[in-house]
Amino acid sequence: MNITLQEAGAKLLSAEKIIITAHINPDGDALGSSLGLYHVLKDMGKSVEVIIDDDLPDDFDFLPGYELIKKPEAEKYEADLLVLLDVSYDERIGRLREKYQGTVLNIDHHGTNKGDVDYLYLDADRAATAEIIYQLVQELKVKVSQDIAYCLYTGMTTDTGHFRYSNTSAFTMRAAAAMLEAGVKAEVVSEALEKRSYKEIIDRAKAMLTIEQFASGRVAGIFIDLPLYESLDTTEGYIDGVRVLAGVDVAILMKEIEPGVCRVSMRSKGVDVSVIAASFDGGGHIRAAGCTIKKPLAEAKKMLLDKVISVIGTEPQKEA
Amino acid sequence: MNITLQEAGAKLLSAEKIIITAHINPDGDALGSSLGLYHVLKDMGKSVEVIIDDDLPDDFDFLPGYELIKKPEAEKYEADLLVLLDVSYDERIGRLREKYQGTVLNIDHHGTNKGDVDYLYLDADRAATAEIIYQLVQELKVKVSQDIAYCLYTGMTTDTGHFRYSNTSAFTMRAAAAMLEAGVKAEVVSEALEKRSYKEIIDRAKAMLTIEQFASGRVAGIFIDLPLYESLDTTEGYIDGVRVLAGVDVAILMKEIEPGVCRVSMRSKGVDVSVIAASFDGGGHIRAAGCTIKKPLAEAKKMLLDKVISVIGTEPQKEA
Repeated sequence: MNITLQEAGAKLLSAEKIIITAHINPDGDALGSSLGLYHVLKDMGKSVEVIIDDDLPDDFDFLPGYELIKKPEAEKYEADLLVLLDVSYDERIGRLREKYQGTVLNIDHHGTNKGDVDYLYLDADRAATAEIIYQLVQELKVKVSQDIAYCLYTGMTTDTGHFRYSNTSAFTMRAAAAMLEAGVKAEVVSEALEKRSYKEIIDRAKAMLTIEQFASGRVAGIFIDLPLYESLDTTEGYIDGVRVLAGVDVAILMKEIEPGVCRVSMRSKGVDVSVIAASFDGGGHIRAAGCTIKKPLAEAKKMLLDKVISVIGTEPQKEA
Repeated sequence: MNITLQEAGAKLLSAEKIIITAHINPDGDALGSSLGLYHVLKDMGKSVEVIIDDDLPDDFDFLPGYELIKKPEAEKYEADLLVLLDVSYDERIGRLREKYQGTVLNIDHHGTNKGDVDYLYLDADRAATAEIIYQLVQELKVKVSQDIAYCLYTGMTTDTGHFRYSNTSAFTMRAAAAMLEAGVKAEVVSEALEKRSYKEIIDRAKAMLTIEQFASGRVAGIFIDLPLYESLDTTEGYIDGVRVLAGVDVAILMKEIEPGVCRVSMRSKGVDVSVIAASFDGGGHIRAAGCTIKKPLAEAKKMLLDKVISVIGTEPQKEA
């Protein structure tokens, strides 16, 4: 059932033992909002654990509490409350779902959230789940510590592309201002997130040389086959390199991460790419979405491009 | 003489005919603060012109009033007040200085500003001159129109590297929030500024493949000779591609823009690069500075690297 922010706050207040989790393939908002809420609840004297069923990207190792995040290795989990953060579908939390039978509180900002949980607080107007956690912090009257601030700021800055995407609101900027006042240094976060090894910079430059354009330039993408993917340390930020191409409405990054399994990221300047992602059982937002296509690269590429081109074919041409 | 914000406001209030100018090689803050102030003064019923002695970068053609900016082609300029914005040294305004003999009001945020003008309002704590213009707008009790907001937001976002640099403060974020409330869409600005042609993306990728590292990786740079420079449409953002290299303290972009004339941009994560720039008669801030070295590329490169390495040699090693 859908609940209010106040009710979500009350659920947290009345629980003593709380497990926090977020989606697999965790990003800055999944990690930032999870660890931010972790510190909030710790400061309130709760017993709290953060459990995420995936490897964590190294980029975020500067987040206070990063080293405390565990995978769900135990057979069974019990708590007063499992808090699912930043997840569109609760199945995206991995093995924890089957290992936990108790009450679930889901806090999310994805408009695509299906809401198949006990309690859902959803606010699709918020750019990041971290913004909602900041609202909860205010609701719960907890002081924003520097640790909380670093975590929540990271969620906000990553989900808004460093305050550049259309989801960036005056609310976002004021929330970020409060985090800076609580001790965050903007450059510490941006330098940590943007830091690249020499190899990563060279790999990225080579990848940019392979950009392909389709539909008179309205669609562009980078398509990475398995051997190339396996040679890369990261593909973080590749999609932004495509997104900035003049005239591009839909930017694509497709990478074959296992034989016959292609992971897709899409960014848009207008077209609703969450619809395209959903047609391949993925999810996301209007301007940023992703999915997995279980086909070899060439086949997955054709399937995706056919879908993208058919969707943009129904949309008016955007000025380049 | 140094004056207060209130006094600067009073100078503007009492003048009827005002010319606004900014530094040559104008950036987003020079253009944004100039055009922002232009709209403010227009809304107050003043006679206003913006005159900048340089070609304007196309990237900013979305700024309201961009097409009204002129070069100082007349023989002589008269006004009640010439407002110099975002300039460290008044000689950097080009030919206008010798064509105008009246009163000068300088509004700036560069700590290196020498203050050799009639009236100077300097606030080195502000990330952008556009932030100061926003304070003036509040002082003058002018409504922030959407036009004003787009101009000032652009100044703020460009001078803070999209709110990522160390100069980004809670004040910056709140000022930006006010601009969003006045009608700015963050993505309109970021997409306009980040938009790159296919050629630009390919050129940039090739440039990244030429990154050179020095001083055990604490210094890194891209060095562009004249023939390559002449083949490029822009080098915007190249320095950021160097800045993100792990372990780099000083990032350099050097380009030979004419035979025997090399323009240098530097970004730092700690070292005061304004000192290095000043030793070549340039200027800027601790973490972002620039200069011009009138030598062929190979010679200019050696001179600059010698200086940079001698400066960082006196600083403690920063953690990579």
